Amino acid sequence: MAFQLAKYFPILDWGRTYKSETFANDMVAAMIVTIMLIPQSLAYAMLAGLPPKVGLYASMLPLVAYALMGTSRTLSVGPVAVLSLMTAAAAGKIAAQGSPEYIAAALLLAFLSGLMLLAFGLLRLGFLANFLSHPVVSGFITASGIIIAASQIKHILGIDASGHNLFEITVSLFQHFPETNGPTFIIGGSALAFLFWVRRGLKPLLKSIGLGETSALMLSKAGPVLAVIAGIVAVAVLGLAEQGVKIVGKIPTGLPTVSLPSMDSDLWAQLVGSAALISVIGFVESVSVAQTLAAKRRQRIDPDQELIGLGAASLAAGMSGGYPVTGGFARSAVNFDAGAETPAAGGFTAVGIGFAAVFLTPFLFYLPQAVLAATIIVAVLTLVDLPAIRNVWNYSKGDFAAMAATIVVTLLMGVELGVTTGVALSLFLHLYKTSRPHFAIVGQVPGTEHFRNVNRHAVVTSDSVITIRIDESMYFANARFLEDTVYDVLACSPNLKHLVLMCPAVNSIDASGLESLEAINHRLKDAGVCLHLSEVKGPVMDRLKQTSLLSDLTGKVFLHQYEAMQDLDTGCAQSAIEKTTPPKS
Amino acid sequence: MAFQLAKYFPILDWGRTYKSETFANDMVAAMIVTIMLIPQSLAYAMLAGLPPKVGLYASMLPLVAYALMGTSRTLSVGPVAVLSLMTAAAAGKIAAQGSPEYIAAALLLAFLSGLMLLAFGLLRLGFLANFLSHPVVSGFITASGIIIAASQIKHILGIDASGHNLFEITVSLFQHFPETNGPTFIIGGSALAFLFWVRRGLKPLLKSIGLGETSALMLSKAGPVLAVIAGIVAVAVLGLAEQGVKIVGKIPTGLPTVSLPSMDSDLWAQLVGSAALISVIGFVESVSVAQTLAAKRRQRIDPDQELIGLGAASLAAGMSGGYPVTGGFARSAVNFDAGAETPAAGGFTAVGIGFAAVFLTPFLFYLPQAVLAATIIVAVLTLVDLPAIRNVWNYSKGDFAAMAATIVVTLLMGVELGVTTGVALSLFLHLYKTSRPHFAIVGQVPGTEHFRNVNRHAVVTSDSVITIRIDESMYFANARFLEDTVYDVLACSPNLKHLVLMCPAVNSIDASGLESLEAINHRLKDAGVCLHLSEVKGPVMDRLKQTSLLSDLTGKVFLHQYEAMQDLDTGCAQSAIEKTTPPKS
Repeated sequence: MAFQLAKYFPILDWGRTYKSETFANDMVAAMIVTIMLIPQSLAYAMLAGLPPKVGLYASMLPLVAYALMGTSRTLSVGPVAVLSLMTAAAAGKIAAQGSPEYIAAALLLAFLSGLMLLAFGLLRLGFLANFLSHPVVSGFITASGIIIAASQIKHILGIDASGHNLFEITVSLFQHFPETNGPTFIIGGSALAFLFWVRRGLKPLLKSIGLGETSALMLSKAGPVLAVIAGIVAVAVLGLAEQGVKIVGKIPTGLPTVSLPSMDSDLWAQLVGSAALISVIGFVESVSVAQTLAAKRRQRIDPDQELIGLGAASLAAGMSGGYPVTGGFARSAVNFDAGAETPAAGGFTAVGIGFAAVFLTPFLFYLPQAVLAATIIVAVLTLVDLPAIRNVWNYSKGDFAAMAATIVVTLLMGVELGVTTGVALSLFLHLYKTSRPHFAIVGQVPGTEHFRNVNRHAVVTSDSVITIRIDESMYFANARFLEDTVYDVLACSPNLKHLVLMCPAVNSIDASGLESLEAINHRLKDAGVCLHLSEVKGPVMDRLKQTSLLSDLTGKVFLHQYEAMQDLDTGCAQSAIEKTTPPKS
Repeated sequence: MAFQLAKYFPILDWGRTYKSETFANDMVAAMIVTIMLIPQSLAYAMLAGLPPKVGLYASMLPLVAYALMGTSRTLSVGPVAVLSLMTAAAAGKIAAQGSPEYIAAALLLAFLSGLMLLAFGLLRLGFLANFLSHPVVSGFITASGIIIAASQIKHILGIDASGHNLFEITVSLFQHFPETNGPTFIIGGSALAFLFWVRRGLKPLLKSIGLGETSALMLSKAGPVLAVIAGIVAVAVLGLAEQGVKIVGKIPTGLPTVSLPSMDSDLWAQLVGSAALISVIGFVESVSVAQTLAAKRRQRIDPDQELIGLGAASLAAGMSGGYPVTGGFARSAVNFDAGAETPAAGGFTAVGIGFAAVFLTPFLFYLPQAVLAATIIVAVLTLVDLPAIRNVWNYSKGDFAAMAATIVVTLLMGVELGVTTGVALSLFLHLYKTSRPHFAIVGQVPGTEHFRNVNRHAVVTSDSVITIRIDESMYFANARFLEDTVYDVLACSPNLKHLVLMCPAVNSIDASGLESLEAINHRLKDAGVCLHLSEVKGPVMDRLKQTSLLSDLTGKVFLHQYEAMQDLDTGCAQSAIEKTTPPKS
């Protein structure tokens, strides 16, 4: 039982050897991450169309839950940009932004997503996330970044613009542009310029005045906090709120209460699809961050236990007034660089955010929304990866098609349809590709024991003995294609006496593949041609031995292709099967 | 243009060399097939819940259309058992059996299915049929055969029984069993016993009295006609129709008129899904029959043109009072054995059926339905392939799961849900399997240049140089699994300096696989380990050369694994890339 507990609560493992030195390192990292997370929590809550306190709440209990059950030592869990956008899209279908029903929907999304992640983890279904290909994820993130940035421009200009896709948002921005609020634009524009400069220019500057790499990085990450402070001071001192600069306003002071979300079954049914997408996207993002950081220290994470850790975090968010959370890239990298050694750093960060929620919220009253919008824009533009699009185009047109479809559909028809289209298209293209695998007729390279594709090399072939190399596992989607190929060769080769299927790249043969081999054997026999196999792999041979194929085979099974050619050239083999030949492994 | 026409009308090809001798052979085959097809047409129409004339109409123009556009020399197109069952299931959702709306729905199913097959053929989408795996098709056919046989028992007993699945049919048969009509049961039972004997005992008997193999086969296939004649005579002479024996009754004499089916868009929308399933199942069945027969004579068929040929046949059925048709197995085998040489035999068969529709229908008035039911039962029980279930169970548990699900769902929830479940489950299981491919850590077989799995062979390994052989193409569904595997090895190998990925079975690497390789290279570099590749295939290497992976690689690319081990054992390779190494092809 203790063993089982430690499996599901990794804290029982690393907690046993926790030392004061580790504590000190975790504390330092937690303080730095807390400073970074306060403006992020507020900004992403605004992006999700939720009150600022929801962002703070989502940065407390979920971090504690992940610290207990997660396997990454350095992942920093909390609100992230893409999930905030997806939350806004899903909750927006239920109610108007900011209404109590909208907030309840966001809460339920976190709860449902937590339940799903936990269930996937307990059933060890983490592999399902693999069906999101890199190009689809990359395209989705890029498109989301563009939509998020576009949606925040209205806050920088101080106008009311709206729209459900990039086209509508852009049109609305142009329509409302004349209403731009001067003071808001000055504050928002300055924050934007400052933050871009911090990202590009501050770190080199700090290093040039003698700071170490890590310290320079840490300080440059504090840019958003400086912008927030400057924004608050400017608004408060100059009385800009009266001139139309929108501010965060009163944030209720205090800690979240724990309660269950809505149990309305209609609402559950409406949100379950969105929660599934949020779960999968959140998991894929978080796992790739966690793996990147773990590999740097030769640590490892367990994807199925990660599902449980992230599930617990989302469930905690759904039960403590938050909204969907996951591991964030920028924040985790800072946590890692700041020296966090265990998930305890996340727990300490939660305490820091709790402290802020109790003592700092009055100071955030005058925080201009334009500054939060600027931090979002600067953060999400790093998500936009245009070179990746070009790279995928150069490498694989099929992958590019899936990526382009994901981007276009996400930009014009929304995040949920975008990612669904991408997954469906990439699965279809993969199946299409493997349903028409590469087959090559091979011949002997003169003077060697090697056999190569007749179309790529000058090789020796024969009219009566033809060898086809199969470059793919044989399964139902390509079984008929293999038959077609063999019958085409048969129809074009009047002198054919022996056909050899060379199988070094056949990793498995399913029941359909087996039936096709039996059909080929049978039909070649009718046509007076012997079928032989060569270079069959050990595990494949083990399974073929359980069938009647080998005893029905009109030819032999050869360990090496060279053996086959020597044997068949001297003319023999009719219906005598060399069952003693050991398989290649 | 002439070239294009000949592509879509193979008759322009074989028709040019048509000789009187070929004509004689085709005529003989056509006469034998006509005799076989008359009772089949009537019986399958009854199975589909349609009037007898619909069966005859479906055996005229469709055969002419296939003769013009099909590529198989010997396929016999017409009504078949499984499509009749599927037609009954689909049309039964629209209206009551036998009603004008029901007949219109069957007509429209043929028309829609014809349009789809034509479109698939013109778009060269024949590969879509490959996603029906052999076990799913086999399980579906077996389950359909059982349902069809069970549904015909009521005709043998002369009772009214009904039900939408095997369970309901069985219960209904038991409930109505006491109402069994004596004379009907005597006729139906005798016909059943006679037909079983013909199938089992007649051919050996005929051969023992000196007939040749082919003649004996032909005569034994005439069994149903003898049963039909005996049944008609018995009913007419003994006046059994008055004693409750149900008869076919009046069949309108004459040929079908050509017209368009219903253009009601609601009806189209209701039937489009069923028509798609009918198209795919019909195509798969027909193509495998056509391929089997073509291979025997070293001919070939073109699956994409077959779609067009079958599409034209279905369209003709839908425009001439028929219902969905495809190539039938038993009939085509008889056509082949009787010596048919070209599709013209099908055209002559259509003429024979037309002759029957005009002159023979009065004689079919007294034909008892029980005899037709007996011919159906004997025919479909040959579809039930129980040994195949055991074989699949022995060979592959995954394939068995898909097959068992198809059978159970088809028997209990209907044909359409059954085949859909089977396809979805087999796709899921295939993707699951390839998402967790076989990886092996390999070592050197002492004294040789061969490398084998450390778990299967006694091999030499090293602490600092580890080789992982990848037994699958790298694509998005397994890219992350590869990363996990490598990071696990990394976490467990404190002395690791060089990691070699051995790729002889990697047939392709998609963009996700490439990104994973890049990530692995990057993370191994962070951990101070060099990444090398060995035995990369030519086409894979060609594409990798277009990327930055090879220049970023911390290690080398080796032509052979043995080279890699020699090179790395002597200690070298740090960040020097041997770009001149030619790839293996």
